Amino acid sequence: MTDPRRPILVRDALRPLCLDERGLRLLDQRRLPTEEVWHHFDDNDGDAAVEGVARCIESLAVRGAPAIGGAAVLALAAFARRPRLTRAQFVDALLRHDARLRRTRPTAVNLFAALDGVARARDAVVQAGGDTDAIAAAVVDAAEAWCHADEAACTAMGDHGAALLSDGDVVVTICHTGALATCGQGTALGVVKSARRAGKDVAVVALETRPLLQGARLTAWECQREGIPVTLITDGMAAFALARGVRGRRIRRALVGADRVARNGDTANKIGTFGLAAACAHHGVPFHVVAPRTTFDDSCRDGDAIPIEERSADEVRTAVGGATSPADVAVWNPSFDVTPAALIASFVTEAGVGPR
Amino acid sequence: MTDPRRPILVRDALRPLCLDERGLRLLDQRRLPTEEVWHHFDDNDGDAAVEGVARCIESLAVRGAPAIGGAAVLALAAFARRPRLTRAQFVDALLRHDARLRRTRPTAVNLFAALDGVARARDAVVQAGGDTDAIAAAVVDAAEAWCHADEAACTAMGDHGAALLSDGDVVVTICHTGALATCGQGTALGVVKSARRAGKDVAVVALETRPLLQGARLTAWECQREGIPVTLITDGMAAFALARGVRGRRIRRALVGADRVARNGDTANKIGTFGLAAACAHHGVPFHVVAPRTTFDDSCRDGDAIPIEERSADEVRTAVGGATSPADVAVWNPSFDVTPAALIASFVTEAGVGPR
Repeated sequence: MTDPRRPILVRDALRPLCLDERGLRLLDQRRLPTEEVWHHFDDNDGDAAVEGVARCIESLAVRGAPAIGGAAVLALAAFARRPRLTRAQFVDALLRHDARLRRTRPTAVNLFAALDGVARARDAVVQAGGDTDAIAAAVVDAAEAWCHADEAACTAMGDHGAALLSDGDVVVTICHTGALATCGQGTALGVVKSARRAGKDVAVVALETRPLLQGARLTAWECQREGIPVTLITDGMAAFALARGVRGRRIRRALVGADRVARNGDTANKIGTFGLAAACAHHGVPFHVVAPRTTFDDSCRDGDAIPIEERSADEVRTAVGGATSPADVAVWNPSFDVTPAALIASFVTEAGVGPR
Repeated sequence: MTDPRRPILVRDALRPLCLDERGLRLLDQRRLPTEEVWHHFDDNDGDAAVEGVARCIESLAVRGAPAIGGAAVLALAAFARRPRLTRAQFVDALLRHDARLRRTRPTAVNLFAALDGVARARDAVVQAGGDTDAIAAAVVDAAEAWCHADEAACTAMGDHGAALLSDGDVVVTICHTGALATCGQGTALGVVKSARRAGKDVAVVALETRPLLQGARLTAWECQREGIPVTLITDGMAAFALARGVRGRRIRRALVGADRVARNGDTANKIGTFGLAAACAHHGVPFHVVAPRTTFDDSCRDGDAIPIEERSADEVRTAVGGATSPADVAVWNPSFDVTPAALIASFVTEAGVGPR
């Protein structure tokens, strides 16, 4: 049995999750790009570490569909790697923590896929009569496998998706789909990175992505750090940018991430994605979804079956902490929308580029 | 001759422009809804009053296509109503002030239509050999006529447009098109007011309208003051709101204002309008432009001929004064976009509802 306290993800400037000999650390993405603040959970934090990670997911300190899955399983791994309970107490705690983490956010299915993977590994050892150490090892191994598979999927998606892009292309994207959103180089933004590594001069037009401005805060920041040319626009500028080009260059494709893809190809992603897709359809600009297979949910028939998280009205009534509107105005604040499959040219996954 | 110092627009909580015995006052719309701040120009301010109004237009303290026209002609009226120059000096000053006001903002054609009206009246008296008082009276009369015609146009547009709306309808709109944007009750929002006065329960879904948040700050505020039910959403939520309805009610129509309508019907309006129109087209929701005839520019063949103002990158890099992005990120910030005529169901003007 390998050491359950081995590093699983080591700290890196663009990696939002880290589990190593110093414990579990999560980068607070709400504070970027102004500050780089890490939440630290020690191996001795036990239950409190899991609760802390759950709150980081709920508060969007950690966000991005694959990264949410990664954070959840790393929370279980961090808890499991110092089991100091009886076997029965330990199994009970793992079940409780699994349930707690599933209650954090409803839309991104990667969270549930990740937790399912750990639960299956846990149950197999429990049912085989394995002891506490064996159960713990299974949890840590499954968490590691999930994170490393996500990292590998990012690389594979990048390679497949890069073939869609030509030298000189400008790509429009929404929200943030880079390293900060995954365990690897990212999904949609990862494709741009792979294309640039392949020698293609690809530039990004980033929608700022109200209400929480992940495009302005995170995509702009990550592109700058990675040397990717980026132009920031507001969400409402997308249709005109597609019509006129941005700073003299036409937008050739849209690449976006996903939080859940239904069986018919309807795709939930950050609010604003559907509007971008409708504008792309009007202009005949191909619109691609880049997401690992863990994002595909065969139990959802179509987009109507995807649960859509609605968040606090104050996210819309404010921006970067200041009031934007009368304090008591009514608000509708869905965090995601559903882009109909008909508007999606293809899906880029670790398996290749193609239809759902 | 009527008194050139007579009140032309009297102060009202929802009127952004006022010229009365106390001078010219402009409501600073950048400060709403937090503060109600008025810029005051005294009859003795002379040239400085015109320069002050020009800066109010440039800085968006006064905004809204018809209101910009109103502010410009009222600046000339305020200057003209105390002529203390020789005739030659006075005519020269009027020409200088006309040229200065034309340099403030390029896209809304109402500004130029309003100034053209005053210029024609001025030139007629100058060419007929009228004295300083007669020229001044012509300027004041023309300014008054323009403002009162805009007020009447708002009422007529409201009556015509209200016929499009049914009891229980929800209307989506962008930017701000109410009283604060005109000399009357407003354009698109004026239609909602007229429908409600006619006993129809019509509600508004307001796009916040980044970067400067005129929807969140002004439309939400004016709706609340007028008792119109309003729900605020971000610009990126429009497509999903059209798909799912907002708080249980389907959106039946889009009503927007305009800054310039080209001869073929292509329409410049606040950035984000084109995206809203494309989303409406996807959903089969009728999209209407509400604008007085002064917004129609027969000298522009199509949308490509409409000059589009681009403003400071910092408008996008910030929101309500706080940074939203890395300080040095590249930005594209067109203040307007052009909605193709094909996406517009009809135009509502003071003459009725119909095609361009």
